[in-house]
Amino acid sequence: MITPRTLPGVSDFFPQEMALRQYIKDVWRKVFEKYGYGQLETPAIEYAEILLGKYGEEEKLIYNFKDKGGRHIALKYDHTVPLARATAQYLNKECKLPFKRYEINRVWRAEAARKGRKREFYQCDIDILGVESILADSEVLFVIYEGFKELGFKDHIINISHRKLLESFTKLLKIPAKKSIEVFRAVDKLDKIGINGVKEELEKRKIPKKAILEIQDFIDEKNKTNAQIIADLEELLHENKEAQKSIQDLKEVICYLEMYGIPEKNYKINPSLVRGLDYYTGLVFEVVDPNFGRSAIAGGGRYDNLCGLFSNQQIAGVGISVGFERVYEIMKEAKIEPRNIAKTEVLITIFSPELLQDTLTLAKELRAADIKTEIYLEEGDKLKKQFQYADQKKIPFVIVIGPEEKEKGSTVLKNMETGEQEEVGRDEIVEKIKRISK
Amino acid sequence: MITPRTLPGVSDFFPQEMALRQYIKDVWRKVFEKYGYGQLETPAIEYAEILLGKYGEEEKLIYNFKDKGGRHIALKYDHTVPLARATAQYLNKECKLPFKRYEINRVWRAEAARKGRKREFYQCDIDILGVESILADSEVLFVIYEGFKELGFKDHIINISHRKLLESFTKLLKIPAKKSIEVFRAVDKLDKIGINGVKEELEKRKIPKKAILEIQDFIDEKNKTNAQIIADLEELLHENKEAQKSIQDLKEVICYLEMYGIPEKNYKINPSLVRGLDYYTGLVFEVVDPNFGRSAIAGGGRYDNLCGLFSNQQIAGVGISVGFERVYEIMKEAKIEPRNIAKTEVLITIFSPELLQDTLTLAKELRAADIKTEIYLEEGDKLKKQFQYADQKKIPFVIVIGPEEKEKGSTVLKNMETGEQEEVGRDEIVEKIKRISK
Repeated sequence: MITPRTLPGVSDFFPQEMALRQYIKDVWRKVFEKYGYGQLETPAIEYAEILLGKYGEEEKLIYNFKDKGGRHIALKYDHTVPLARATAQYLNKECKLPFKRYEINRVWRAEAARKGRKREFYQCDIDILGVESILADSEVLFVIYEGFKELGFKDHIINISHRKLLESFTKLLKIPAKKSIEVFRAVDKLDKIGINGVKEELEKRKIPKKAILEIQDFIDEKNKTNAQIIADLEELLHENKEAQKSIQDLKEVICYLEMYGIPEKNYKINPSLVRGLDYYTGLVFEVVDPNFGRSAIAGGGRYDNLCGLFSNQQIAGVGISVGFERVYEIMKEAKIEPRNIAKTEVLITIFSPELLQDTLTLAKELRAADIKTEIYLEEGDKLKKQFQYADQKKIPFVIVIGPEEKEKGSTVLKNMETGEQEEVGRDEIVEKIKRISK
Repeated sequence: MITPRTLPGVSDFFPQEMALRQYIKDVWRKVFEKYGYGQLETPAIEYAEILLGKYGEEEKLIYNFKDKGGRHIALKYDHTVPLARATAQYLNKECKLPFKRYEINRVWRAEAARKGRKREFYQCDIDILGVESILADSEVLFVIYEGFKELGFKDHIINISHRKLLESFTKLLKIPAKKSIEVFRAVDKLDKIGINGVKEELEKRKIPKKAILEIQDFIDEKNKTNAQIIADLEELLHENKEAQKSIQDLKEVICYLEMYGIPEKNYKINPSLVRGLDYYTGLVFEVVDPNFGRSAIAGGGRYDNLCGLFSNQQIAGVGISVGFERVYEIMKEAKIEPRNIAKTEVLITIFSPELLQDTLTLAKELRAADIKTEIYLEEGDKLKKQFQYADQKKIPFVIVIGPEEKEKGSTVLKNMETGEQEEVGRDEIVEKIKRISK
């Protein structure tokens, strides 16, 4: 016997879990398509050279191996780099710009296995390629707002910053470029270690005291409104041209979010936001819901140079990736059970082989009426066992056709929740189930 | 620049292709759930030992490699072996018998790359674990029949045989067990090489002339009805007890298919059917549609010993796997375009930054009415370019709100197919689109 086991960091999902997972995927799919995003599916396996050199420090997490033909193969690490590769590869053929696409699929990362770190998980992405206008960045946020709202996340906050903002600020403080990266890393941890934690990190890295105070002030929002944050940034960075462009982008995205009617409580300019990946070049986003901890439930940004790695042409890009597994864990823990989740509505028992025809015919009629129907499959089993099956699978209604019922042209309908039984005419049962099961 | 390219045997699927692929998946999902099958998702990566030794000759096609932790990892080859592993691993916990599940997911095979052989592809499976009754085998076929019918395959034929049937027959012919395997392989090619091809193969393998004639007779159905085939088998194999049990199973499945009202033209007892995989033990199935060549569009069977490889308990199993890629290719080539395929219904142009608010507000209203709506995202572009985008993306309707329309409280609606334009009141446009777009 081979011991049945799974690799660390990967999971089997059984139907009770898959129903919720599928529901979440369907909600995103519906919202993405409502905004005109089409689905793209890129392969799970790529030539390793396509993925390597794009993710900075995280590159070491890419699964890669040589196949029998000697090819160096890597498992997909995210959907963004394969998207950039596919866009370049099929440009002006299958792929015409502007290209708005979504992908909901698995990715793999050779993480050190610890709680919450998965080696195989879903990401759920939308991206727009070929549009420079901040309207594209804004639309991506409209979509994300609507998706989370639809899923029941009412208090989620979209944090927004610009990749160049902190850079301009450390320049202003005269911190050398190499040292600046250490500052970014420390600031990036603000959510996890708090403002004092950041201070300690910066002290450890020998950033001058005065600069630390200014950094603290820069990243501490002190409950300012978005307008105030922008006004402060403008004042602070008025001499830096690049920073002015970043602030202009922030002002535009805020303006469009307002125009589209996204409530201001759901988005926030947050200068401490960094986002680790190398490829971002402009606005960056991260979504959190304070009701469910501090980890991001989505993140993304603008990456205007990524496609250029695979093409002679520069192609602007912006997108966001929903942390599917995190969203699923939150909804599972909160016991959010959407009504329209897939499950069997009726079980028809099997009384005896002579009555099997009656069971099959009724099953067929119920299915034709789009009612999720099972028949019990092991003919010899006692009725008690058949009811147990319904109970264990949480099927709400059971129909019995015994010899007496057949004789009378009726059926017995049992409501498994209340335990009530009633006789329903054979010619009325389909309509009855249609009425009570939805 | 890195040349953008994909591995041989894998594909990118762009939105126009994904819409049809998603439609096919949705149809199967809907049908599976209507019969009470729940979704199970097993990982893409498994310990290699879980997969090795289950697939016979085909085992060499399993992608496998060592990870950095020295684990021997394999990419999923099919959904059936991981299902057996998961069932054993979670038995009487997440997994209670009888267990009816479906999985629609990717698998990987290191095939020699040639036309039609993919290295990454979808399989779409249903299985029932823990039921010995032939009613389970039959239900799997009801589901498959309904799914193919729903997809528009009206003439598909479910070929049915029993794993032990040919075995009993070669025993009757006194062909030794080792030699029998060669006979099975030759017979398995009947669909591809015809009855004379099989004869030649058997001659090459030095099967006695008399036996070859009998084998030819055995596998040639000569347009016999199912009842005649069964009668002939009963006569031919009446002395073999095991064969009698196989024939009994065939009789039962035929009886249930009839009871459920599956038209007889859609199923056929076919004694030449072999199915390559090692794990089958009972009835075997293969679906073809003569309108679309001779390759199978689905295949499966009963495997009562597979779970036992991972468990001290024997668990009966039966299932079928739809050849998703083959079905997709057929539907794509036949240009079958289902009506309810995902695509954008309306594009709203952007006239100028001053009118952006009007565009955004209308987009929001249309989306709230569940109409798939895009706004054009590059603000500076000319109207002509915006119309080109709609044309290229085959968006059927375009709405323009210019300064004149805004003044009058109206919009211009253009039907992209006919080229007709009409003025529609701003307060009527959402209702109008709802009416014409479905």
